[in-house]
Amino acid sequence: MAKTNMKKIIVNNGSVSKKYALFDSDKEIMSAHYEMLPEGFVVTETAADGEKEAQIDRKIFDKSFSDFIGKLLDRKLLSDKKEISAIGVRIVAPGKYFQEHRLIDDKFLFNLDDISDLSPLHVKPVQKELSDIRAELGNSAKIFSISDSAFHGTITTAARLYALPREMMEKLGLYRYGYHGISVSSVVNEINKGSEKYQNIVVCHLGGGSSITAVKGNQSFDTTMGFSPLEGLPMATRSGDVDPNVLISIVDSEGFDTAELQEFLYKKCGMKGLSGISGDTRVILDEIAKGNKDAENALDLYVYQIQKTIGAFFTALGGLDALIFTGTIGERSAEVRRRICDKLSLIGVKLNPGKNKLQINGDGQISSDDSRVRVLAVRTKEAEEMARIIETLV
Amino acid sequence: MAKTNMKKIIVNNGSVSKKYALFDSDKEIMSAHYEMLPEGFVVTETAADGEKEAQIDRKIFDKSFSDFIGKLLDRKLLSDKKEISAIGVRIVAPGKYFQEHRLIDDKFLFNLDDISDLSPLHVKPVQKELSDIRAELGNSAKIFSISDSAFHGTITTAARLYALPREMMEKLGLYRYGYHGISVSSVVNEINKGSEKYQNIVVCHLGGGSSITAVKGNQSFDTTMGFSPLEGLPMATRSGDVDPNVLISIVDSEGFDTAELQEFLYKKCGMKGLSGISGDTRVILDEIAKGNKDAENALDLYVYQIQKTIGAFFTALGGLDALIFTGTIGERSAEVRRRICDKLSLIGVKLNPGKNKLQINGDGQISSDDSRVRVLAVRTKEAEEMARIIETLV
Repeated sequence: MAKTNMKKIIVNNGSVSKKYALFDSDKEIMSAHYEMLPEGFVVTETAADGEKEAQIDRKIFDKSFSDFIGKLLDRKLLSDKKEISAIGVRIVAPGKYFQEHRLIDDKFLFNLDDISDLSPLHVKPVQKELSDIRAELGNSAKIFSISDSAFHGTITTAARLYALPREMMEKLGLYRYGYHGISVSSVVNEINKGSEKYQNIVVCHLGGGSSITAVKGNQSFDTTMGFSPLEGLPMATRSGDVDPNVLISIVDSEGFDTAELQEFLYKKCGMKGLSGISGDTRVILDEIAKGNKDAENALDLYVYQIQKTIGAFFTALGGLDALIFTGTIGERSAEVRRRICDKLSLIGVKLNPGKNKLQINGDGQISSDDSRVRVLAVRTKEAEEMARIIETLV
Repeated sequence: MAKTNMKKIIVNNGSVSKKYALFDSDKEIMSAHYEMLPEGFVVTETAADGEKEAQIDRKIFDKSFSDFIGKLLDRKLLSDKKEISAIGVRIVAPGKYFQEHRLIDDKFLFNLDDISDLSPLHVKPVQKELSDIRAELGNSAKIFSISDSAFHGTITTAARLYALPREMMEKLGLYRYGYHGISVSSVVNEINKGSEKYQNIVVCHLGGGSSITAVKGNQSFDTTMGFSPLEGLPMATRSGDVDPNVLISIVDSEGFDTAELQEFLYKKCGMKGLSGISGDTRVILDEIAKGNKDAENALDLYVYQIQKTIGAFFTALGGLDALIFTGTIGERSAEVRRRICDKLSLIGVKLNPGKNKLQINGDGQISSDDSRVRVLAVRTKEAEEMARIIETLV
C-alpha cells in the first residue's frame, strides 16, 4: 500500500488508562500514556528526547486528549491542530456493525449509542472520548474506528456460534466476535514478517484483560473472548467463563440488576476476587512467596485455564508451530510464562529458562533450540498496527 | 467388601425419563424404564423373560414408583414390600452437602428443600419421588442418596474453583461439583477391572446431558459440568457455557426472571435451539443428510467443543491412554464418534472405521490396533454402580 505523508493520532483507551500517539506516516513521533494508579494520576510522555513521567490531577486525566494536543503544539511537533488529518480510535464493542473498521460518522455514533446500555463499561468512555476529540478538532480530521474484533472476522462457524436459538442470536447479534484483535494481528505480522512463516500459532495476550487466539496462516481461527471481553479466561478482575447457574445464584442472593451484575463480573472477580488481594500478578507472586494460599489458588486457576486452552487450540489447529506471549504479563512476567509452559512438554514446548528470565519487555525466542514449538515473547504493537490500518482506510 | 444378601431398588430419574431396577445382592432381577416420548408415555420392562414395552397413561407415569412395586409383586419377585431393605436414589444437586452419598433423613430433606429454588429443574422431581417412595413403603426401607457428584470429589483445586470473590463462593457454595459421576465411575471400573490398567483416561458421557471427565489413576481429575449440569459442552437442549454478557443481553431483551432464564437455558438452547429442529442427534443427522445447514452448524458446534475439551484434558492430564464413549449418543452413534475422532490424530487417536460402525450398544474397542490411544465404546452401568455403592453404605 502507498504510504500517505500525513499526521495522524492513535487513541487507545483501556479500562484504567488512555494511550495517545502521533504518527507521521508509519513513524511514531510522540506518545503519552495517561494512567490512574493507586497512588494517583500519572502521564508518561515518550518522544525522540526520551521518556518523562509527571503527576497530574484528575481534571487533566479527564481531558487527556486536549492535554496531548497541547503537548504536541508546545513541542512544535504540530504547528496547527489542522495538520492532523486522521484519528484512529480503538473500538471494543459487540455487534456485526462494529466488527469492521469504519469512518466515524453520524450513523456510527447512532449505532454506538444504541449499544451503549448493552456494554456500558466499554462504550461510554469511548463516547466521551469521541466527543472530546470533536470538541478539540472540529471537523478538520477524519475519525476512524479501528475495530478490536475485525481480525477475528475469519474464525470458523463453530467458533462463531453459541448453542442458543438461532432467531434470538440473529435478533440480538449474539455471536462470538473476539477482542484483542489489533494486538494479536500486530504480533502475528511481527513474527511472520521474515522469510520463515509460522502456520499454526497460538497467541496469549495476557494483561489486565487476557485472551488466547488460535491463528492459522495469519488468520484468526478461534479465540477465547466472545460476544464481549468478559468471556474465556479468568482475568485480573473479570470472571471469565462461569456456569450460568452460578450467575443465577448470585443474582438471587445479591439482588443485582443486570448492570450491577456486569459491573461485578468485570471489576470484583478474576484473580482479584479469588485472591482477595489484587488482580496484579506482581502482587500475587509476592504473596505466593510469603505463603499466601489464596494468592496461589488464584494464579493456579489462571495458569491452568491458559494451559487447557493452549491444549484445546493445539488440537483444533491440528498442530502448533509457535506459541507467543504478549500483553503486560506476557511480555514482562517470566515467572507466569514459566508456570504456563511447565505443563506443555507433551505438545512440544520446551522453555530455555535462562532466555525466558532475561526476556523482559523485548522481542525474542524463549524456547530452547530443540523445542518442537518455537516460543516467543513479543511486544504488542497496537499503535503501529492502528496507524497501518488507517493508511488502508483514508 | 462383603455382599449383603438383600433386595434393593435403584431409582434413577432423568429429565424426561425414570428408571427403576430391583437388585438382589449385585444381581439385577428386573428393571423398568418410564419414558415421556413425543408419541406418548411408554414403559419398558426388562427381566429374565426378556423385554416388554407398553403404552401407559400419564397417571401411571406420574405414579411410576408404585407401578414398579406393583409389577414386582405381580411377578412374585417380591412376596412383600417389606422385603426391600434399601433404596438408592440418584441425586443431582449442587452444594458440598450433596457431594457425598448419604442416608436420606429429615436433615437431608431439609437441606434438599433449601436448595430447591436454586435448582428447581433437578430437585423438585426428586422431592416428589422421595415422597412417593415413603408413601409406598413407609419406614421399612432405608433410602440412600447416591450423589452424582461424589466421584468428582478428587478434582484438583484449580478445577474446583471459579474466578469469583472467595467469601461469596464460600457463602453460596459456588464451587464446581461435576455430574455424571456414577456413570463415569461405572465405566472406569469396567475398563480397569482387568489386569491392564489405564492411567490417563478421558470419558465422554454423551447423551441428553453431555459432559467430559478427565480421569487419572481411577480418580476424577477435572470435568466439564461444574456447579450445575448446565456448564460445559452444548447439549441436546442446554446451552452449556455462554459469555455472561450474552445472558445479560437476553435478560434485558426478554425480561426473564432468574427462574425463566434457567428454564430457557435448560430447555430451549443447545442443538435444539441452534438447529431450530431437534436436540436429538438422530434427527439432526437425518437433516444434515438432507442438506440442512442449521442442523450441520448445531452438530459441528457440539463436535468442535468436544474435540477442544479432549485436547484440553490431554494437556492437563499430561497424556492420554484411553478415550471412552458412553451415554446414549456415545454408545449408539458411530457417526458422532467418527466426527469427533476425525480431528484427534494429532493426539494419537486412530479409529478403526469398521469396528466403530459395528459397535452399537455394546462394549468394545473401536480404535485401530496401532492407535496410540485406545478408544472404546462402553455402556454406562449406573444401576449396577449404584447397587455397588449401596453395599458400602448399609
